[in-house]
Amino acid sequence: MSWHAYAAELGQMGRAASIALRSVSPARRNRGVVAIAHALRSQTASLLEANAKDVAAAPELGLNAAAIDRLRLTTDRIEAMAKAVEEVAALPDPVGEVIDGSVRPNGLQVQRVRVPLGVVLFIYESRPNVTTDAAALCLKSGNAVILRGGKEAIHSNTRLGEIVQSAMAESGLPPAIVQLVNTPQRDVVGELLKLHTLIDVVIPRGGKSLIERVVAEATMPVLKHYDGICHVYVDASADIEMALRILENSKCQRTGVCNAAECVLIHAEIAVKFLPRIGELMERRKLEVRGCPRTCAALPEAKPASDADYRTEYLDMIISCKVVDSLEEAVAHIEANGSHHTETIVTNDYAASQAFVTQVDSAAVMVNASTRFNDGGELGLGAEIGISTDKFHARGPCGLKELTSYKYVVKGSGQIRG
Amino acid sequence: MSWHAYAAELGQMGRAASIALRSVSPARRNRGVVAIAHALRSQTASLLEANAKDVAAAPELGLNAAAIDRLRLTTDRIEAMAKAVEEVAALPDPVGEVIDGSVRPNGLQVQRVRVPLGVVLFIYESRPNVTTDAAALCLKSGNAVILRGGKEAIHSNTRLGEIVQSAMAESGLPPAIVQLVNTPQRDVVGELLKLHTLIDVVIPRGGKSLIERVVAEATMPVLKHYDGICHVYVDASADIEMALRILENSKCQRTGVCNAAECVLIHAEIAVKFLPRIGELMERRKLEVRGCPRTCAALPEAKPASDADYRTEYLDMIISCKVVDSLEEAVAHIEANGSHHTETIVTNDYAASQAFVTQVDSAAVMVNASTRFNDGGELGLGAEIGISTDKFHARGPCGLKELTSYKYVVKGSGQIRG
Repeated sequence: MSWHAYAAELGQMGRAASIALRSVSPARRNRGVVAIAHALRSQTASLLEANAKDVAAAPELGLNAAAIDRLRLTTDRIEAMAKAVEEVAALPDPVGEVIDGSVRPNGLQVQRVRVPLGVVLFIYESRPNVTTDAAALCLKSGNAVILRGGKEAIHSNTRLGEIVQSAMAESGLPPAIVQLVNTPQRDVVGELLKLHTLIDVVIPRGGKSLIERVVAEATMPVLKHYDGICHVYVDASADIEMALRILENSKCQRTGVCNAAECVLIHAEIAVKFLPRIGELMERRKLEVRGCPRTCAALPEAKPASDADYRTEYLDMIISCKVVDSLEEAVAHIEANGSHHTETIVTNDYAASQAFVTQVDSAAVMVNASTRFNDGGELGLGAEIGISTDKFHARGPCGLKELTSYKYVVKGSGQIRG
Repeated sequence: MSWHAYAAELGQMGRAASIALRSVSPARRNRGVVAIAHALRSQTASLLEANAKDVAAAPELGLNAAAIDRLRLTTDRIEAMAKAVEEVAALPDPVGEVIDGSVRPNGLQVQRVRVPLGVVLFIYESRPNVTTDAAALCLKSGNAVILRGGKEAIHSNTRLGEIVQSAMAESGLPPAIVQLVNTPQRDVVGELLKLHTLIDVVIPRGGKSLIERVVAEATMPVLKHYDGICHVYVDASADIEMALRILENSKCQRTGVCNAAECVLIHAEIAVKFLPRIGELMERRKLEVRGCPRTCAALPEAKPASDADYRTEYLDMIISCKVVDSLEEAVAHIEANGSHHTETIVTNDYAASQAFVTQVDSAAVMVNASTRFNDGGELGLGAEIGISTDKFHARGPCGLKELTSYKYVVKGSGQIRG
């Protein structure tokens, strides 16, 4: 079978499954999610076996020790995957929610009702747990999903696909609700991205080159995440200890994530007190600082920052630093250099907090809190399929609701338009 | 100036205006909307003058009498445009609405707050009133807008652009909130569609070729409307008089609009009674029917329908007609041939109404009501900038709320992530 025919079959099977899902009760959909967790536990041995093949092949694919560790499954990790799926099952069902409604003057009853998007194409490069997370989130939200994992996890993911499909069969659900692309061939992705009549949305999750390729080729909407160039702004009135705690948490708790801070902006009035405290962080956390001239004057260990530094997502123990003369300068710097992901102000000044929240247009704008809180779990959405840096459809963490659309349901008694 | 430079200037001016709008109070924004209505009234004479040039040039551009009538402005039509703008001013302000919110276990206060999309590029081919409607809707929702009208209305739209900008100036608002592309050159559209860092969404409104061009070239999200192949399904239990009234209204009230019916499906059990009534419509409304063999057997005046007929948006006094043996067959026909726009069932059977609403996935699914009600005004949204046939971001009529996104506002007291 050609890639073209294979992709078309995946799309058609997915579409048929998504249509069948419209008539499946919420309880049966949820039993399917729970069955994925059970199947993970009962088929742990065969999954570990498949995973061992991926781990063995990893050095040849050029994976480093950290990447191989992320790829490796253990009994504990599989149990954690099962628990994560059960947590999705426990979330409120989004499908059928009446978002709003009214009765029109002519008596028509109008409701906006939440419905699944339809067929989701999910392309990812991450750890095997993403496979079961995505399957659970899509099924729970009434969507069919076509999963395309990274080639480094092909054996694990193929086995996981079988495990999920056994759970579908056991729950009396169409197996094509969750389909796994069974080849590492890149051409099949290109073919899938052409199928806008069969696939409603594509969600790429991974490096920038993957996302750029998907954006360039996709004929359907893309729910995507580009850079996370997040800022901590330490206002003139900030509590110094709080600011230091929030900066350390935002930058250092985990450096490789999108909601980690990449730049700290410091009001000139507090800089003389605050910059030496950053010096402590440099020593204690081995943090590299790339700063403006005023920063470098106060912190001899800092390196000078280039313009490019302020637009760089380091994903490392490095931060850029700039002293600003006003909140307005901080906001303008964020607008010019940031990625509209997450910014936080540390302040005790009410007017400053209000101005920052109003003027900064990011997926999450925070006051006196770590940027690391921009996360589906932390914000109360439950598990997330990704974080959107777009303003269209969904912004910030994308959980179950963000995998839905709505339809107008209009009930009348013979009304016609005059 | 090159098209490239001109487009970039439009984009940059629009972006700057959208940033400035973040700090403009709702009252001042609304005064700007009202000022557009006032300016329309006070500058009626010069607008009529400009419009006369378009009307005079119209025959050379190949416009027929109906199109010229749509293009022509009169004092009454300008008054109606002013009133429409005042109606937008009277709608609730969408910006700043707290969509939902919660307090997390760690005390973080999380709110989802409605914010403008940013910069909207609106491309249209319609009557001059669309220019002021779009300006009012975008300003009211806090967006900057770049308007690109059809070449047949270039004089009217240029004058309307000046009128709107005089209203902005008078209200102390940045004039670049509403910019009008001042050339009929096509290349400038291509350049604008590349500016995804400056323009947040493009809304094309017009013929299919315009929309297909925009979809193909746009690098930003597209809010769009393709076909409206809408169905009336007359169920076995339908009230015959109600069904006829709804069919006549759905098909014949206005044939050139997207929510007009293009196909009627009739349950076999009621067909023998109902088909002759369609014969009445054929005579009284000069309706052409293209039907299945059972339809043609009952209605000698009907023509046989081809497969293509069932997928055609006639936008004319023509309807396709098919007798089906079950609700399931009707639903399957709609899924295979419809455009997920608007479908209605006429029935007195509760289970049938529930099944139809559950199984049909269209922007609007109706029971015992005319398809013509899928309209922003009729469904209670107020004025609309278009109707989306997509499931992503917005579905169905797009009013003020559909021109917005949201951001998470998170207020803490020094929380860090553990």
